[in-house]
Amino acid sequence: MSGNTFGKLFTVTTFGESHGPALGAIVDGCPPGIELSEADLQTDLDRRKPGTSRYTTQRREADQVRILSGVFEGRTTGTPIGLLIENTDQRSKDYSEIMNTYRPAHADYGYDQKYGFRDYRGGGRSSARETAMRVAAGAIAKQFLRAQGIEIRGYLSQLGPIELGCKDWSVVGENPFFCADPERVSELEDYMTALRKEGNSVGARVSVQAVGVKPGLGEPIFDRLDAELAHALMSINAVKGVEIGDGFAAVHQKGTEHRDELSPEGFLSNHAGGIVGGISTGQIIEAHIALKPTSSITIPGKSITRQGEATEMITKGRHDPCVGIRAVPIAEAMLAIVLMDHWLRHRAQNADVVPPLSPIPGQA
Amino acid sequence: MSGNTFGKLFTVTTFGESHGPALGAIVDGCPPGIELSEADLQTDLDRRKPGTSRYTTQRREADQVRILSGVFEGRTTGTPIGLLIENTDQRSKDYSEIMNTYRPAHADYGYDQKYGFRDYRGGGRSSARETAMRVAAGAIAKQFLRAQGIEIRGYLSQLGPIELGCKDWSVVGENPFFCADPERVSELEDYMTALRKEGNSVGARVSVQAVGVKPGLGEPIFDRLDAELAHALMSINAVKGVEIGDGFAAVHQKGTEHRDELSPEGFLSNHAGGIVGGISTGQIIEAHIALKPTSSITIPGKSITRQGEATEMITKGRHDPCVGIRAVPIAEAMLAIVLMDHWLRHRAQNADVVPPLSPIPGQA
Amino acid sequence: MSGNTFGKLFTVTTFGESHGPALGAIVDGCPPGIELSEADLQTDLDRRKPGTSRYTTQRREADQVRILSGVFEGRTTGTPIGLLIENTDQRSKDYSEIMNTYRPAHADYGYDQKYGFRDYRGGGRSSARETAMRVAAGAIAKQFLRAQGIEIRGYLSQLGPIELGCKDWSVVGENPFFCADPERVSELEDYMTALRKEGNSVGARVSVQAVGVKPGLGEPIFDRLDAELAHALMSINAVKGVEIGDGFAAVHQKGTEHRDELSPEGFLSNHAGGIVGGISTGQIIEAHIALKPTSSITIPGKSITRQGEATEMITKGRHDPCVGIRAVPIAEAMLAIVLMDHWLRHRAQNADVVPPLSPIPGQA
Amino acid sequence: MSGNTFGKLFTVTTFGESHGPALGAIVDGCPPGIELSEADLQTDLDRRKPGTSRYTTQRREADQVRILSGVFEGRTTGTPIGLLIENTDQRSKDYSEIMNTYRPAHADYGYDQKYGFRDYRGGGRSSARETAMRVAAGAIAKQFLRAQGIEIRGYLSQLGPIELGCKDWSVVGENPFFCADPERVSELEDYMTALRKEGNSVGARVSVQAVGVKPGLGEPIFDRLDAELAHALMSINAVKGVEIGDGFAAVHQKGTEHRDELSPEGFLSNHAGGIVGGISTGQIIEAHIALKPTSSITIPGKSITRQGEATEMITKGRHDPCVGIRAVPIAEAMLAIVLMDHWLRHRAQNADVVPPLSPIPGQA
Repeated sequence: MSGNTFGKLFTVTTFGESHGPALGAIVDGCPPGIELSEADLQTDLDRRKPGTSRYTTQRREADQVRILSGVFEGRTTGTPIGLLIENTDQRSKDYSEIMNTYRPAHADYGYDQKYGFRDYRGGGRSSARETAMRVAAGAIAKQFLRAQGIEIRGYLSQLGPIELGCKDWSVVGENPFFCADPERVSELEDYMTALRKEGNSVGARVSVQAVGVKPGLGEPIFDRLDAELAHALMSINAVKGVEIGDGFAAVHQKGTEHRDELSPEGFLSNHAGGIVGGISTGQIIEAHIALKPTSSITIPGKSITRQGEATEMITKGRHDPCVGIRAVPIAEAMLAIVLMDHWLRHRAQNADVVPPLSPIPGQA
Repeated sequence: MSGNTFGKLFTVTTFGESHGPALGAIVDGCPPGIELSEADLQTDLDRRKPGTSRYTTQRREADQVRILSGVFEGRTTGTPIGLLIENTDQRSKDYSEIMNTYRPAHADYGYDQKYGFRDYRGGGRSSARETAMRVAAGAIAKQFLRAQGIEIRGYLSQLGPIELGCKDWSVVGENPFFCADPERVSELEDYMTALRKEGNSVGARVSVQAVGVKPGLGEPIFDRLDAELAHALMSINAVKGVEIGDGFAAVHQKGTEHRDELSPEGFLSNHAGGIVGGISTGQIIEAHIALKPTSSITIPGKSITRQGEATEMITKGRHDPCVGIRAVPIAEAMLAIVLMDHWLRHRAQNADVVPPLSPIPGQA
Repeated sequence: MSGNTFGKLFTVTTFGESHGPALGAIVDGCPPGIELSEADLQTDLDRRKPGTSRYTTQRREADQVRILSGVFEGRTTGTPIGLLIENTDQRSKDYSEIMNTYRPAHADYGYDQKYGFRDYRGGGRSSARETAMRVAAGAIAKQFLRAQGIEIRGYLSQLGPIELGCKDWSVVGENPFFCADPERVSELEDYMTALRKEGNSVGARVSVQAVGVKPGLGEPIFDRLDAELAHALMSINAVKGVEIGDGFAAVHQKGTEHRDELSPEGFLSNHAGGIVGGISTGQIIEAHIALKPTSSITIPGKSITRQGEATEMITKGRHDPCVGIRAVPIAEAMLAIVLMDHWLRHRAQNADVVPPLSPIPGQA
Repeated sequence: MSGNTFGKLFTVTTFGESHGPALGAIVDGCPPGIELSEADLQTDLDRRKPGTSRYTTQRREADQVRILSGVFEGRTTGTPIGLLIENTDQRSKDYSEIMNTYRPAHADYGYDQKYGFRDYRGGGRSSARETAMRVAAGAIAKQFLRAQGIEIRGYLSQLGPIELGCKDWSVVGENPFFCADPERVSELEDYMTALRKEGNSVGARVSVQAVGVKPGLGEPIFDRLDAELAHALMSINAVKGVEIGDGFAAVHQKGTEHRDELSPEGFLSNHAGGIVGGISTGQIIEAHIALKPTSSITIPGKSITRQGEATEMITKGRHDPCVGIRAVPIAEAMLAIVLMDHWLRHRAQNADVVPPLSPIPGQA
């Protein structure tokens, strides 16, 4: 209710501040009998981890996760999974000078107005450091979905002005930008180097997909699969927009152009992004998100103190010049969590009536 | 849990099918003592009502709402408000021929896969007729917010290729398009007339605003104000994209361009759309949605029967050539519901610590 | 959140006041494909209905329920079921004199303190009239459970000082007391006649059972099957105590006496009432509730006005001298709702791991 | 949803197994600005802690709690409070022989049927060791309530056949039985010594009170204060019955006897236990619980193996001969959690209409 839990049947509740002793999560609702180890979570955590290239923040966190419960003899027991990551490289002194000032485009001002009280060390709870726990929880969901034949994947589809296609999924993990076009990587390196020199930051667009989801997943009305996905993705730090399938391009499309016709061999197009009426169609589910430029930059900006006086500030500390890049595994995690939650919800209500999620003839 | 309820403290649960005997809702969590009458709800219902111009569906529904509980002597009692609208113009025979076929871009196929069972009369539960109850519930929220000095408003910001500015809020209610630019109305009429002749449909973009929200509203992490708003707006039939503030334009913005600097007189810009870190900033909250073209068109399209055989179909019945237009009051309603819910949530946790939602000096 | 909804996957939300125009409910989460008609609900509503014998209130309500949605061609569709009962015999004038006074042992005082505002007509929302909707919703749950081989039943196990055994389930429906011992019915008639003459009321004890529940149903920790059942039963008007199995008798039992030993042919006793560790054991689930005497009696009692002045009052109107009697179908309904909710919850998490709810060898 | 979370606005989610590496909890919804330290939690944890007298289990756990988040500079921040207790004295080898057998009156059989998979070390998740986290969370609630003038307290009101009055609250903390009658302590010592020698166990009755709760707290219908309290208390391991106020004694009371009359000086009695119609009356809230005898005893009992074969078993390990005794701080914790949750819920809906929870003239 206080905003720290996501999901209805598969629930993820996180705690922890950027510069507190630890981050943690309780992942509840995972069915028993799923193979799970800390290594399964570490793979995705390492993909999000800071300090792995010179294009991200230089804060060094091992992000080593411990599973404290819910797994016994290598399998989930059906009881809640407690997760813990100790913070190791919190340098709170970096933040002492912002104690009394609101950083522009940061949550500082709103949090102070809301709580009347503020953990100013690195943004406290509002820091994107919290997303480490989402990635860990998402890895559990991915593990579950994989067993159902569902694959989750994502890539950087735009960096500032540079639009990027999806040419080769296999290279996404081989460059620090989650770029799916191997020929554009050097262009991204040049852009980021110039940006860093400038002391500025830039926005990004990230695209995620779920492959192998059977038709029939989702709930009607308010908890449509796309609505919950929009919720999940918009809840990621810095996200300002969410699209399903064609998204805003649908505004100027005609009905004849947008509608995905059906044939005995399957759908003839996928403008809908795999979700119609809030329910999966059996096609690839695709969503896109817009991320604003990193708020912490070294170019001075106007602000006010807690007392309402004018000031100018530079945000020091260690930051990503484009937060959008590391958002790829986070967006994947949120997509996985939404799908797993809906899978369980589907099963609760529909299990013995229809065979669960049967495919249309000719559909992958 | 089955997707028919929205909100956590201020909750709206709807029931009813397009061609069933009635639509209804239970609106729960409304504080006691608020002045409320059926007339307060009817104003917004009439704005959404079908059959009011030749640019919308010709189905004629009075959409007369009854308040069955929760109001006594002209004021809310704090107990649940039961709402009912009887359906009067359901012509189910129109739908007999689609009983065995899936209409492209409709929820038919997904619902059948999900439930193994389908109310084929006008889309049953998946019909946008359900949104009448959202508008009624939203009118309750608007009434509450108005007493807190918050105004909710919306307009059509794009119809197919025609982009529309917001020149004059006072004219929005005076044309059938919710257009805020009086000089463009005839252009819209011409476009719609041509579209109808063609038997086709088109997408639209709708923009909504909340004016007067104090800073500090929203929850951290998953239930950010923008995340819940994205959920609410994406849950409206035909919506494929949601933006907060600059939305996807933020992708190519630099940090210096996007960040809203603060001064003792208030913020110097509003790229964020009034929400930063999931918490309101005290500026105007602004969101935009993309709506796909109406799926029901008279130009034949390829489809399949329930048995998986190829067929071709024309969607008869009575439909809007652009569902986006009537979405304006629906989007306003969802915005109002989200804000009222967060208002109550804020008050629960923060009431006696900070004075609720105090303004920044110099901020409206 | 405001207390008008019960259940997590199978949810019942009710609205309506004792003397408002109607009572209603939304029953959500019911799987699709279940046969259901208004007649299925009416049977239980008639068992609870007031005015059927001279031992209950003389208010005459047809309690005729309408299903407004969620059922199509005689089967549930999986979408929310809207229910409505119009009030027909509300005589609000009976209550005009209590407008300014708190009736002892009624909710009047607490409601006024809570809401600062009060619907004084027959207790408004606090009236047990609301339980009609629970019985209707419970009938849907019973219908579902019956298909799984589960039978729900209840009887009056004590009326004031008269303790009643369970001798013959078949006679429960044949007397106005839900008494399972045919030889004691005339004793109950005599007691009730004397009580009515006296103008007084008395407490009661009601016992309910679920037969045919397989082992493994329930959740750990907070949502134990017995904890949710205690919640459900204690939420019935006038209930002051709940027991599972031996209940308070367990206080003076030794471990050797209480523990239900297991054998290859099944359990050797059922002190636990069919639930251990919050999970069903496959034995008969049994719970007992204590109901306080009806608060509305014609013997004058001391009270205060809204202004805090002393007064004396007689509660006129039409009331049951023992509210406990008509609580039998209500308690059955709550038991059915809890079990159906847990059935769906079980299936969500456990469906494809264990075969659902398999029996122990030798166990019914 | 999986049963590991309690509360709606003030929520407690726990994880951890009896013999896993750690127990933990996330306590969410606590308002910002409340003074809180680990020492505040430790006091109650020490009251529940095993191994403190020879009448409880000899397992030695420091039960040292760490606060990992949500507290900054000695005050709550309004963000989730992460709690952790490392297990130190888990001797899993004690349990190797029960791996394949179901202990009578334990959750073993039900858990195995539910999950198809079982952590057999000390009962895993079903162990009462989990309640340590409830006590820690309850201590946060107590801290909050204390600032509102509400005191929570409890005592042992019956041990097997020995009924115990409440003569002196000040002695409850000075004996290992939470006994409020100093003259009966030696009688309890003798009884327990004999019981231990016998190798048997016995049931108990525990009573808890909240003093200082203003009238008007609670929700109508399903989330009545008493219903949620019944839920909370029945969710404690080994509880088989819950009473509010007179509880089952109300069954044979007449209306004139049970009803609590009002006078300008306050109520004239408190049969209701401080809750009427689900709403607090401003009197002392009182509840009683029945706890079954400890299931683990050294007298052999009949059981079956996982394969359904007959066996006989003795439960070794370290156990309390009467689990009811240490349930006193647990029951207090659950009462505190329920009240704090309802306090926040009340404030959300009612804050600006009525002054929150104003007292009746002449009422404490």
